Amino acid sequence: MNRKQDTLRRLEEDEDVWVASADPDGNPYLVPLSFLWDGAALILATLGSTPTGRNLRATGRIRIGLGLTRDVVMIDGSAEPLHPDEVSDELGDAFLAKAHFDPRKLDGYLYFRVVPTRIQAWGEEYELKDREILRNGTWLI
Amino acid sequence: MNRKQDTLRRLEEDEDVWVASADPDGNPYLVPLSFLWDGAALILATLGSTPTGRNLRATGRIRIGLGLTRDVVMIDGSAEPLHPDEVSDELGDAFLAKAHFDPRKLDGYLYFRVVPTRIQAWGEEYELKDREILRNGTWLI
Repeated sequence: MNRKQDTLRRLEEDEDVWVASADPDGNPYLVPLSFLWDGAALILATLGSTPTGRNLRATGRIRIGLGLTRDVVMIDGSAEPLHPDEVSDELGDAFLAKAHFDPRKLDGYLYFRVVPTRIQAWGEEYELKDREILRNGTWLI
Repeated sequence: MNRKQDTLRRLEEDEDVWVASADPDGNPYLVPLSFLWDGAALILATLGSTPTGRNLRATGRIRIGLGLTRDVVMIDGSAEPLHPDEVSDELGDAFLAKAHFDPRKLDGYLYFRVVPTRIQAWGEEYELKDREILRNGTWLI
């Protein structure tokens, strides 16, 4: 298995990720969300009033699970809210095509951009030792 | 779909859950873990020195994802560490049979017990409205 290629394929083709966030008091939250991979970052969108929206606005801290529990990609990074001016027509249209909803037309939705700073990928337990495949934004394999 | 039956079936048969926790400063963590459903609680085990182990010991706050992103069960509850005296032979053996590893024989592993206080279950987005199926520990359906 080429874990880099497999990870990039999942980023291109998978429809959803698991998004973990927390409020400043340390209450964790978890929810599946649709996403778009723009080649360098994951683009997420959620209502600003949901726990995930509130947590990401408050702290920017996020950990993302992609794939299945036994064939998993874990992504660490910071979630940066996108100002509406930063959402180009191209980006908005690409998000709609991938996620099948259009936050530009929905009240109260925010886009967040997550540039991975660390990626771990592993299947079964025996692969845990070498699971880190991207560190400080740089591919290790 | 009977979501209660479907949820109980997943609790009995699924091998892994997604476990979100956070440290007291609000840094989220997420990892897949094997689990056992004992009829009333999820039993998890992890190294006390991992981020998940440290977070659960420090705060007890946990949110669990079960199933797939488009057929999902979200579980809120508190994670209580089990003292070794509380791990009966029956419980330890049942965990081994389900999770295929035996924390009793591994250094530094802790068991945690999570009694669900709230469960949400939904498939596609149209089911979001009635997604809460257990509240304050009581089934609503």
